[in-house]
Amino acid sequence: MSKLISDITMSVDGYVAGPDPTLEEPLGRGGEQLHDWMVATKAWRETHGMDGGEDNADSRRFEEHLRSIGATIMGRRMFSGGSGPWEGDPNAAAWFGDEPPFHHSVFVLTHHARDPEVKEGGTTYVFVTDGIESALEQARAAAEGGDVQVAGGANVVQQYLAAGLLDELQVHVAPVLLGGGVRLFDQLGPDPPKLERMSVVESPAAAHLRYRVVK
Amino acid sequence: MSKLISDITMSVDGYVAGPDPTLEEPLGRGGEQLHDWMVATKAWRETHGMDGGEDNADSRRFEEHLRSIGATIMGRRMFSGGSGPWEGDPNAAAWFGDEPPFHHSVFVLTHHARDPEVKEGGTTYVFVTDGIESALEQARAAAEGGDVQVAGGANVVQQYLAAGLLDELQVHVAPVLLGGGVRLFDQLGPDPPKLERMSVVESPAAAHLRYRVVK
Repeated sequence: MSKLISDITMSVDGYVAGPDPTLEEPLGRGGEQLHDWMVATKAWRETHGMDGGEDNADSRRFEEHLRSIGATIMGRRMFSGGSGPWEGDPNAAAWFGDEPPFHHSVFVLTHHARDPEVKEGGTTYVFVTDGIESALEQARAAAEGGDVQVAGGANVVQQYLAAGLLDELQVHVAPVLLGGGVRLFDQLGPDPPKLERMSVVESPAAAHLRYRVVK
Repeated sequence: MSKLISDITMSVDGYVAGPDPTLEEPLGRGGEQLHDWMVATKAWRETHGMDGGEDNADSRRFEEHLRSIGATIMGRRMFSGGSGPWEGDPNAAAWFGDEPPFHHSVFVLTHHARDPEVKEGGTTYVFVTDGIESALEQARAAAEGGDVQVAGGANVVQQYLAAGLLDELQVHVAPVLLGGGVRLFDQLGPDPPKLERMSVVESPAAAHLRYRVVK
């Protein structure tokens, strides 16, 4: 069966976004630095329709990941660019523009029903109001045998982890301290799942840690 | 000049000790797992006067680190075994026994003046009541050109980091989620120091991340 994999970048001090998000800095103060490793890669730039970029370990890592993924699940806040002043607007536009970098179906967890949105380049946003299990079921069907990724935010990763639905945890540790913000893991509680290390990939720009969640 | 290096193991969710410490589990629920990678090594066992152990990347990593260190700084709680029911007893015994594994001078930050304690095997505990800078100065002198390590706990590492005194940050990420406890980095504040990645060492038992603190 296809796996459910969370794939997210955190700072050395455990944050996936910095403090005080604004419209100009939706990932909070310093939060953009988290993704420097990814944005610099050839593979990321290709996905975004751009030339150039570095063809290095990070790029290969990103490309392999993309190749295995058939559908994405994300939270409503990630869809519209993190938590911030626009929060609460159920019709907020997608953060990822008219030709989103996913090129497959993206299932957005939300409390507000909304028609699917077909974007250019193969991405369709499907809004799911009946919970994480329903989103996973729909994403698995859409992935047609490929894996499903949980792209974020942190609370969505935590929900799938707590529900025992996550198969793998990929944490990209960016070489940065943010000092505050949104934690990837916030008080998982008295009985957190066990992990088994799968791999550690070194690169100049990030440490890529990959764990199997023991069920 | 000799460097000040923090060297500490944290869980994937950022804790250096688990929740609810007791006399039986001074590192909190699940906290002992953090050090599995270290305890299994030949180098760690030798330091503790024991035979056997694995001669692997972790062991070499641990041995190289030990060789470079001439003195250790730690907090009062780490000295007497983490936070727990014994806390507040200024005469609590050292956690590390009669022949501690340091084999050099250890400077313990405390609010209670106390005579130095000379232990077997070259470890002398020196109790420092006049702050982190004084402890560092004394440790540098004792290290005779070797590096000084901050062994913990988390709040001592945070104090040296905030004061701009730390040169390197070594974080051993153990493949475990603790769900709660004592965080290595807890709200460092609005202006956290910048890091530069130095190395990532992979091993089956832990990911060893090493950063230079940019001054």
